[in-house]
Formats: sequence, structure tokens, C-alpha cells
Amino acid sequence: MAAIKTIGILTSGGDAPGMNAAIRAVTRSAIFSGFKVKGIYRGYKGLLTNEIVDFKTQNVSNIIQMGGTILKTARCQEFKSPEGRQLAYDTLRQHEIDALVVIGGDGSLSGARAFATEFNFPCIGLPGTIDNDLYGTDETIGYDTALNTIMECVDKIRDTATSHERLFFIEVMGRDAGFLALNGAIASGAEAAIIPEISTEVDQLAELIQNGFRKSKNSSIVLVAESPVTGGAMALAERVNKEYPEYDVRVSILGHLQRGGSPTARDRILASRLGSAAIDALLDDQRNVMIGISNDEIVYVPFSKAIKKDKPINRSLLDTLRRLSI
Amino acid sequence: MAAIKTIGILTSGGDAPGMNAAIRAVTRSAIFSGFKVKGIYRGYKGLLTNEIVDFKTQNVSNIIQMGGTILKTARCQEFKSPEGRQLAYDTLRQHEIDALVVIGGDGSLSGARAFATEFNFPCIGLPGTIDNDLYGTDETIGYDTALNTIMECVDKIRDTATSHERLFFIEVMGRDAGFLALNGAIASGAEAAIIPEISTEVDQLAELIQNGFRKSKNSSIVLVAESPVTGGAMALAERVNKEYPEYDVRVSILGHLQRGGSPTARDRILASRLGSAAIDALLDDQRNVMIGISNDEIVYVPFSKAIKKDKPINRSLLDTLRRLSI
Amino acid sequence: MAAIKTIGILTSGGDAPGMNAAIRAVTRSAIFSGFKVKGIYRGYKGLLTNEIVDFKTQNVSNIIQMGGTILKTARCQEFKSPEGRQLAYDTLRQHEIDALVVIGGDGSLSGARAFATEFNFPCIGLPGTIDNDLYGTDETIGYDTALNTIMECVDKIRDTATSHERLFFIEVMGRDAGFLALNGAIASGAEAAIIPEISTEVDQLAELIQNGFRKSKNSSIVLVAESPVTGGAMALAERVNKEYPEYDVRVSILGHLQRGGSPTARDRILASRLGSAAIDALLDDQRNVMIGISNDEIVYVPFSKAIKKDKPINRSLLDTLRRLSI
Amino acid sequence: MAAIKTIGILTSGGDAPGMNAAIRAVTRSAIFSGFKVKGIYRGYKGLLTNEIVDFKTQNVSNIIQMGGTILKTARCQEFKSPEGRQLAYDTLRQHEIDALVVIGGDGSLSGARAFATEFNFPCIGLPGTIDNDLYGTDETIGYDTALNTIMECVDKIRDTATSHERLFFIEVMGRDAGFLALNGAIASGAEAAIIPEISTEVDQLAELIQNGFRKSKNSSIVLVAESPVTGGAMALAERVNKEYPEYDVRVSILGHLQRGGSPTARDRILASRLGSAAIDALLDDQRNVMIGISNDEIVYVPFSKAIKKDKPINRSLLDTLRRLSI
Repeated sequence: MAAIKTIGILTSGGDAPGMNAAIRAVTRSAIFSGFKVKGIYRGYKGLLTNEIVDFKTQNVSNIIQMGGTILKTARCQEFKSPEGRQLAYDTLRQHEIDALVVIGGDGSLSGARAFATEFNFPCIGLPGTIDNDLYGTDETIGYDTALNTIMECVDKIRDTATSHERLFFIEVMGRDAGFLALNGAIASGAEAAIIPEISTEVDQLAELIQNGFRKSKNSSIVLVAESPVTGGAMALAERVNKEYPEYDVRVSILGHLQRGGSPTARDRILASRLGSAAIDALLDDQRNVMIGISNDEIVYVPFSKAIKKDKPINRSLLDTLRRLSI
Repeated sequence: MAAIKTIGILTSGGDAPGMNAAIRAVTRSAIFSGFKVKGIYRGYKGLLTNEIVDFKTQNVSNIIQMGGTILKTARCQEFKSPEGRQLAYDTLRQHEIDALVVIGGDGSLSGARAFATEFNFPCIGLPGTIDNDLYGTDETIGYDTALNTIMECVDKIRDTATSHERLFFIEVMGRDAGFLALNGAIASGAEAAIIPEISTEVDQLAELIQNGFRKSKNSSIVLVAESPVTGGAMALAERVNKEYPEYDVRVSILGHLQRGGSPTARDRILASRLGSAAIDALLDDQRNVMIGISNDEIVYVPFSKAIKKDKPINRSLLDTLRRLSI
Repeated sequence: MAAIKTIGILTSGGDAPGMNAAIRAVTRSAIFSGFKVKGIYRGYKGLLTNEIVDFKTQNVSNIIQMGGTILKTARCQEFKSPEGRQLAYDTLRQHEIDALVVIGGDGSLSGARAFATEFNFPCIGLPGTIDNDLYGTDETIGYDTALNTIMECVDKIRDTATSHERLFFIEVMGRDAGFLALNGAIASGAEAAIIPEISTEVDQLAELIQNGFRKSKNSSIVLVAESPVTGGAMALAERVNKEYPEYDVRVSILGHLQRGGSPTARDRILASRLGSAAIDALLDDQRNVMIGISNDEIVYVPFSKAIKKDKPINRSLLDTLRRLSI
Repeated sequence: MAAIKTIGILTSGGDAPGMNAAIRAVTRSAIFSGFKVKGIYRGYKGLLTNEIVDFKTQNVSNIIQMGGTILKTARCQEFKSPEGRQLAYDTLRQHEIDALVVIGGDGSLSGARAFATEFNFPCIGLPGTIDNDLYGTDETIGYDTALNTIMECVDKIRDTATSHERLFFIEVMGRDAGFLALNGAIASGAEAAIIPEISTEVDQLAELIQNGFRKSKNSSIVLVAESPVTGGAMALAERVNKEYPEYDVRVSILGHLQRGGSPTARDRILASRLGSAAIDALLDDQRNVMIGISNDEIVYVPFSKAIKKDKPINRSLLDTLRRLSI
């Protein structure tokens, strides 16, 4: 394949804070290195509907602090079919785009992998998801912001929980991974975290809470990952309420606000470094890799690994949480 | 009745940000004027369970910035009976408390009114509720903070709504009053507000939203007051979804986090002024009044008025909202 | 003069949070009422350099939450001369702009007044300044946000002041008016406020602080308005330090960050209402007035009054501050 | 030495957000493992003035979210002399304290090292400083919060800088290390960072800025570490202003507010893990080590190394900053 001259960039899947910082970093680093940049709107869908514009350094001015993604995002069924991907490829050729940087979660990187393989097209992935569930990178773009958002919400709810002496079940995101629930629980001084990686018996939970109340804690907060495995906060609250009707139990589902907000310093720096490294990777003839960070160093993770492997949670944190909630 | 020497203070009903600033202001103003102060825990319940401690200026140091209430709060069925109130009166006499300052919403002030009448006991009320639904005061303690909390949540959700081009129904507090929903909608640039004071037809709403999408707005947000009158966000979303299945509709229920958080400057200043004025009112031989603010001046509102009258919403704001959401 | 068809809008002087919400409200309300709108960049300067673009509803999408002003702002010496204003008038005529909405402080409204008089040109002013020093309106756009920014900074400094048991002098904006310093002091639980309206003797101040430390307060914070009258925080700290070397005195100058940040709910609502009312005023044949808010109602304030009269500060707040800092 | 039964805990040196989370973690983990805990007030000074109280789990309830330190902190000259340390030792014996956990920066850990050596007294250090300048740990407690505080301040100043098209020099903390300035610059999208580790010529800086303005950037922001090596923001601004009078240059010194504020999730989790690990270290017969974190694992760093070695800054970040500010 000939040398890369023009790089296309898109965001795909659920939005995550820091995606704009990543768009900025990819765009400016690319221009710095002499590439042309084209912004593709609405993820893979924009490749089918031809929503593509030239990106200059000014297109990404003053966006580092914004939540969401200026390129917008969408799910795209059509791209899952060979015909859809062929159409996407034709669009890319038409715009003379020689390489693609995709910012998104595992679904988005799976799409990039299929596309890269079929058309031998250089694709670089950036891990953009609040769930932190991509293998091969210590953190994903958006995770630190979501974690702080959750913590701030729990801080607020604790004001009420303490004033009213209640037991709260708070549901946070994390379909397949408990990073947000477990770390959110430690950060907010919660009493327990219910995560998909670990099965929790209602009896254990109730014992923990009862111990707390006996020691004259005047409120208890449990974070619950929204997942088929945990059953969610509402179901859990109902079970506890049924067996221990003496508690004043409340439920709060944090919902979509966890995805938004101005990114934290850590997410902006991570996005800036990964975005910049994506261009280095292309210059270095890398393709079909996700750019990750490991022990503060940039790493290249083959798409196959990033998507397929389960990222393990640090179980020692469960122990830390247990000790600190006495 | 003899001169007042000792003032009791309690918080009652749902907690509201700024209650601590009010506790601080009442305590320090009272001590400044030569009174003794006693803090009563858990609202009226503490009068029955005898949870009362001496309050010095240091007891209220460094609390102005805290959400919730250091005196805690509770609902108390027993205080609604004459026997309960007699017991409360005995406790007050036993602690040589000569006057009571009650911070809370309409239920709490109703209790104060009944008690004051039965025992000819000096009671002063402070309006503490995020709902802003007390008559006779321009604002209640906690309202401005809750309004800002709602706005910040909607700002976050808008990041996602815009990135995904969705229609969001966001439920906020306000059982009997639309202050939070209507002002929250204007503050966050939402498209519409559904409030108990105004009946909204789904057709009107859908037309408004459709107009927005036609004009290439890429998202729409509707704030819904949690109220039997509106039916809540979930029910509304279902109706819209049924009749207009082409929209990508989502629901978010903000819930308890609206009650918490560090109070805004406005709430702290309001609480400081009202708390200080409560002591002036006692010195001025006022009783059985709620302290309010009207056109930046302190006013005394008889309990009967504060509780019974409906506080009207400024309907011109609906018109403002409509114009600005084009 | 013929009927107004096209309205120009500009921001001038120091920027203030909420200016974008006002730009949005003016633009959308104008379009709602059938006017055309043109955005003028860099204040009056843009009238001389011809930086004017058509504004549609989309130009002001998603800006309600942004600090600063998308129209930018500048000081403009040339507009102070008759020749400069003649040039500005010619530019307006060339763009067929029939009326002007100016968002800014007293300097900006003085300019509007001179221009309106000379050319019989319809001008409407909106009070945009964090200092809250315009007569005839209860609040100016930006004041509430700046007040909260100051409070949040003092909350942070108090963590350090309390941990180290220090005396802090914190300088805030307010060249001619102590609104920010006095209300900021009450909101942050500071011990005193030094404002241009009231002369403060160092001895009085030291006595106040000494009383605090004697009563085992472990820190003291004094807010100082940046003004020739007060002399500023640094000078004051030096005088106190000289006479009372036993204190561990520190100074912090908050500076420019007070002007920025996402506007509070109150500022966004105020800006939305005033911006919308500016169009009503033009429709109602008003001109050469500033739109203000008084007791929650829209008022029209002649430029001459808004600029010339001193806005009095509520001196009872000084008394409140004194009581609460015991 | 006999088995450890009672652990003393103190905070020393400049306060840092997360110190309270660390106090909580040490206290609760110690009690969980069967130790008694005593809180020592005002750092080493409290060992000389005998300000020591029993700590139970409730003493550290609801403090995880607070800035500053509930144990207060102070500098203590007397502890630097052998006589002072002897007195401190006597106090510890009198209270039957068998081990000490010290939270602070390099000065505080130096003191712990001297004391531990002289009296063969088990001391464990926790890295508590916003500067992140302790060797052997990836991060120090307080660094992430200070970084976010700086970023939020710069975000606010950028609103004004952009609206007025100015060049801002913003001074941040970091006497010996540029972590805050460099990472703060990347996070806030600033144009450059002046740090003690790298000498910067005014000419280079001016060229960078001039390039920016030529490319129609409408503002520039430079972060400057407060250090004798950099000379500080004011001196730098004066030099630039003298040589390039065409810029509209402003200076902002962030000052003490960088030390305060509610800690971020990351700082709370770090403090919780390190505090908990301090007890594990004592149980594991470790002493005279600082607990650090390296590649997400707990590590023990001998005091000598933590204090003496310079922690290197990641110079590749300077390159990232340069690329992204085009």
C-alpha cells in the first residue's frame, strides 16, 4: 500500500468524556506530522451516509474541555454486514482517506478489526468507554471522569442518607465489569459494592450492613453495577427490604448522567497522549492495534486481544473496601 | 410568659442544602444576643426521645458549606397526636427551653403551628425545602442549590443526548410545584417543562419536539416534575414512544441526589439572613411566624398563610422557555 | 424611523458568565418574533472593522452553558470619538441593521447611550458584569456565578487555613462596589469583608480577628475588594502583619478566574429573561433603556440612570456578617 | 521490641487533599486488625505539646470527602533538634504508642527517618503532597486533586482569555518539580509549560506564541511552575512584555487554593489503599519505609530513597504538549 497521506477519524458506540480531547490530539498530531485529516460524523454510519469534512487545527480548538463528541456517535447495523463495509470502503477511497482512527469501546473496535482485515486498511483504535473494560490498557478514556461523577453523586446522596439514617442502593454503569462500582464505592466511602465479577449473597450483605448499624453508623450505601449478573439495584433492594423490613431502604439509579460532563485532568491527559500516539503508530507502520497505556507507557494492543480478553479486576480492593467500611 | 433565655433549634422533614448554614446562623445570632442554644436531634422525634445537647459557637464551626443537616432529621408520627406534643412540651420545659426555631417544609411548619397554639409556646419557622413551595417567601433554603444540581445533571445528559441525537425525559422533584422543573428547563436550555400547574397534551409536546428536530436540532430534552399530576417521566416517555416510535427516547430520574450537595452562595446567604432574623424576631416578640424574604427584605409570614396558600408560579417563564427552544 | 427588521447584537467590556445565554436569548427571541439577527464581533470594534455575520437559531445552539462570549469582546478607544461612532453608524446602515442590543457594563452602556443620542438609533442594553454595580437592576448577568466562584475558592483556601491555623486575606473583584466581597464573605463563612463603601480601621479588624482567635477559632479569613479605596489585600496584610506579627498571615489574589466558568442557573435564567425582554422592549417601541430585573419583574431603566446612579449596598449584611463570625 | 499494640497517626507539612481519606484508612484498618489508634494533632508539634486523643472508627466517619486534615498540621522547628525528638519520644511512650504513621512530604518523612533511626521506633510514611515530588511512588496523595483544581481554574481563565484574545501566564505550585505545570498544561490545552526541570528561553517561548497567534489562535496560555529556577509567572511576563509589547499580557497566580478542595476519586482511592497498606506493612514487620504505589501495586520505599532521589518527569509529555498546541 502506498504511503498514508490522509487520516480519517470517527467516534463510535457510547460516548465518553475525553473523546473530544482525543479527536483534538489525533487531529493536531496528524497535522503536525504533515497528514491531512478528515472528520467522519456519526461513527461508521457517516461512512455510509458520506458525512465527512476536512479538519484543520481550528476545528478542534476549545474542545478539550467538552463532554460528548463533536463528531457525534451512532450505532450502525449496516456496517456489520460485508455489503455495508464495502460501501464504507468505497466512501473512504472516494475521500482519499488512507487510514482510520476509531475511538470507541469493544463493539467499535470489533468493527474496526473486521474492516481492517477485509480491506487490508490501516486502522488504529483508541479505547473510549467509561466502563474501563478493554484489555491491554490500564485505563480507558472516560473512566476517570465517570468515576468522579459517580463519587460526586454519592457524596450528595450521602448528605441525605446521613441526615435521614437510611440504607441506599445506588446503581452505576458496568454491564460486564465492576470497575466503576468497586472503585466508586471506595472513593465515596460506601459500605459495599455489588459487581458482576463476584457473587454476593443477600445474607452476607445484610450482615455487613447490620454490623454497621450496630456500631452506630447512621447510614449505609451500597453501589450496584447495572448488570444481568447483579440484577440491578432495584431487585436487590427489594430482596433486602423483604428480609429485613426494619431498614429504611431507598434506591437511586444514576443513569445517563454518568456518560457526560467535562473530562477530568486524567482523562484529558490520557486522551491527549493516546491520540498523539495513534499518529506515531501510523508513522511506525503499525495497524490494527489499539493504543493503550500500561505503567505510564504507551503500548500497542492487537485488536484481537483488546476485545477478546477479559480485563481482571483488582480483587484486593474488595478487601480494602471491607476494612474501611467498619 | 417570662423572658426567653434558651432557644431550641431543630430541622425536620426532607433535608435541604443550607439547613446547616441556617443552624449556624440561628446559633451564633442567638449567642451574640445573649441567649443559650440547645440543639435538638432528629426533628420533633428528638423532643420525644430527649436527644438534646448544648450548642456553643464551635458546634457550628465549619458547617456552612455542608449539605444535609448536622442535627439530622426524621418524620415523626407521634408528634401529630396531642399526647406526643404534650410529651414534647414536657421535654422542652425540662431543658428550660423557652422558644423553638424549626427549619423545614410545610409539614414541619404545620407541626410548629399546632404546637405553638396548644402550649402558647414561641415558635419561629424557617423555610427549608428544595421545592420552593412555601407561600410568603420569594425563595426557600435549598431551592437554589437543587436548581443548580439539576442544571449540572442536565448539562451532562445533554452531552450524551447531543452526541447520540436523542430525546430525553428527565424527572426532577416537585410534587406540588413546578419551580424546579420550569426554571431547571430554562437554565439548562431544555425544550420543554411538564409541571403540575399546567396540563400538557402529548400532542402539543410532540409537535414542539418535532418542530425542533425538523429545524435540525440534534437532540431534545424535556424536564418533568415528579408529581401525580404529570404522571412522571416514565409514563410520559411511554406515551410519546407509543405515538411517535421514530424517536430514540430515553428516561432519566434524578432522584435523591437533588437533595444533597454543598449549598450555593445564594442558599448560604439566604440561610444566614433568615437564621439571623429568627433571633431578631424573637427579640421583637414575634412568634408563630415563618421568616421569609421578599424583594430582598426580611418578612414575617404567619404560619397559617405560609402553609395554606399556594405559591403561584411565574407563567411568563413558560413563554420564555417556548421562545428560547426554537 | 421605519420599522425594525434586523437587530445587531454585541458584547462589550469585561466578559461575564451568562453573556452567551443572553446572546442566545436575544437571537432566538428575535427570530421567534420575525426579526433578522446579525452578530457583531469584538464589541464596538467590530462595527469599525466590519466583523458582522448573520445569526440563525443554530448559531446559538449549545452555548447557554459556556462562560465567556462567543461574540468576543474588546475595549474600543475609537468608538469614544464622534468620528468612530460615525463609522460605526455607516457600518450598521450598510448591514441594514436597525437596532442594537448591547451586553456589557457601565462603560459599554455609556457608549450605547452616546451613540443612540447622536444617531437617533434604537439601542437596548443588558447589564453584563460580575460586579453587580449597575443601578436599576437587582442583579447583573455574571454576578451570581462570580459569587459562587469566589465562595468555592474560599472553601478551598479554608481547608488550608484551618489545617494550618492561619489568617488569610483574599482579594476579590469589585473596584467600585463591595457586592462580591461582602456577599462572598457571608457565603463562605469568612470573618470580615473590606469593601469600598465602608472605611475599615486596621485596629477594628485586628480586634475582630483577635476575638476570634481567643474564642479558639483556628483560622480567620478576610475578603478584600480590589479597589483604590481599600488598598487591596496585599497592602492590608502588610499593615496587619506589621502591627500584629504574632499572626501567620497569608494573601491570595483570586484574579481573572472570577470572570470565567459555566454560568449558574440563576445567571442563565436572568440572561434568558433579560435577553428575551430586550426584544419585547423593541417591539414595544422602547429604546435607550437597559433591561433590568426588580423584585422578579422586568423593568426598563433609562441609560442615564443605570450608569450615573450609585447602587447602594445592603448595609444590614455587614451586621449579619459580624454576628455570624463570632 | 515488643509487639505493636497502639499506633499513632499524624499529618505534617503542607496539607494536601486526601490526607483525611488516609487518616480514615489508617484508623479503620488498624482497628480492623486489632490495634488501638491515637490521633496526634498538629504534626510533630503535637508530640511536644501532648495533643493526642483516642481514635475510634467514628472519629473518621464522613471525612473521606473533606479537604485539609482533621488532625491539623504545622511546621515544627523543635523536632529538628535531638532534644525535641527526645521529648517526642517520651510523649509517645507515655501514651503507650508503639508505632507511628506519618502523612506528609519530604520534610515530614525526613523527620520520621531521623526519629526512627535515633529511637529504633517503627515509623511508616505515606506520601502526602500535591507536588508529586517523592521518589518511588507513581503518585502522591493530593496530586490528582491539585491537578484538577489547576485545570478548572485554567478552564475559567481561558473563557476570559479567548473572549479578550489575550496572552496569560498562570503560576502554579511546584517548587522543585514540574508535574503540576506540565500535566496541567496538557490537561487544560495550554500552549506551553515552564518547569524547573527544563530551561526555557524567552525567545523560544515567544516564537511558539507568535506562531499560535499567526495561525489565528485567539488566545494563549502558559503555565509556570512557582520556582526559583523558573523565576515565576510575574518575572516571565515582564520579560515577554518588554520584548513583545504588542501582546496583551496578563498574569494570574493561583496560590493557596491549589492545596484545598474535596479530593478526587483517584486521590481518595490512593489514600485508602496506602493507608490500609501502612497497617499491613506494620503487621509484616516493615518499618522506616514510605508506602508507595507503582504500576498499581503497593510498594515499600525506604525513607532514604523516597527523600533523596529526584523523581524524573516524563519528558515525552513536553513533546506531546508542543504538538497539541499548534
